[in-house]
Amino acid sequence: MRVILASGSPRRKELLSEIGVEFEVIKAAGEEKTSAALPEEIVKELAMHKAAEVCEKVADDEALIIAADTIVSMEGKVLGKPANQEKAREMMSMLSGKVHQVYTGVACFYHEKQMVFAEKTDVALYEMTKEEIEAYIKTKLPYDKAGGYGIQEMFGMKYVKEISGDYYNVVGLPIARLYQQLKELGIDL
Amino acid sequence: MRVILASGSPRRKELLSEIGVEFEVIKAAGEEKTSAALPEEIVKELAMHKAAEVCEKVADDEALIIAADTIVSMEGKVLGKPANQEKAREMMSMLSGKVHQVYTGVACFYHEKQMVFAEKTDVALYEMTKEEIEAYIKTKLPYDKAGGYGIQEMFGMKYVKEISGDYYNVVGLPIARLYQQLKELGIDL
Repeated sequence: MRVILASGSPRRKELLSEIGVEFEVIKAAGEEKTSAALPEEIVKELAMHKAAEVCEKVADDEALIIAADTIVSMEGKVLGKPANQEKAREMMSMLSGKVHQVYTGVACFYHEKQMVFAEKTDVALYEMTKEEIEAYIKTKLPYDKAGGYGIQEMFGMKYVKEISGDYYNVVGLPIARLYQQLKELGIDL
Repeated sequence: MRVILASGSPRRKELLSEIGVEFEVIKAAGEEKTSAALPEEIVKELAMHKAAEVCEKVADDEALIIAADTIVSMEGKVLGKPANQEKAREMMSMLSGKVHQVYTGVACFYHEKQMVFAEKTDVALYEMTKEEIEAYIKTKLPYDKAGGYGIQEMFGMKYVKEISGDYYNVVGLPIARLYQQLKELGIDL
């Protein structure tokens, strides 16, 4: 079976490889506009956009197309990628010592069928001192990630107190649920 | 500061390296006997044994010694490393579709001071089919791990539904809590 991952994220590629799936990558530009308001609806819609875009591009009904979109949300506010030092400082101060949510939406297109779901994980952080926030910002790690951190990096190992939900969902792909849901559809990855 | 990790586990070494700590490894033989009954008491006692053993060996009061012990427990029963195929099959069938607990005890010796704690994480697994259990056993991955699986390997990416607590605790070292508790003692790793 031809499997296409509609994402250039190295973390998503690694997770899919790790469970033994052979696939090719065709990046979607990704429509960033959405009419949805709730985080779970936003990520589902954005993942569907990506899957549809790549589906049109490849025009191969036999292929399984997998797309995903991840956002970080806190107290009802969606957090993007911090654009500069100031924004990164603000974001880290906001997340420090509190619980936030990570949502990933996954959309699959296969044989004219469509499947979409969203997975939520709660993440609780330890309180960070001002010095720790400054030291973290200096690493330049915050800038390419929604919410400004990667749980699989040094940040996760120092400041994530506990999570409730799927760990890999926070990394960027709820790989176990994807595997399970495709299994239910008769697709054995 | 001289930091000594009293464990040969590659996963613990990786976690400690990842947060930027420079350390040497001096393995403890590890006393496997314990008088404790509760999982949190067992792992604390076994970690203390390991730290004490390495402390005696190096005889250096200036060194920070870190030892850890991890066990998997389900419905009050402690699960070790499966000794053979039969035991691995039994263990996987028992864990499948249910929630179990992973406990890691961490003991630190520093300047004649001692610090010890235990961290618990609940892990919920998806139901595994008989075929999936057989396929997993064939990989030979179950044998060197308490509970028969590694959350950071293919198993975790297919069958772990959700966790409640620290992910790295399941990997073998609750690194964030260790970092935080040492910080409270004035030790900045």
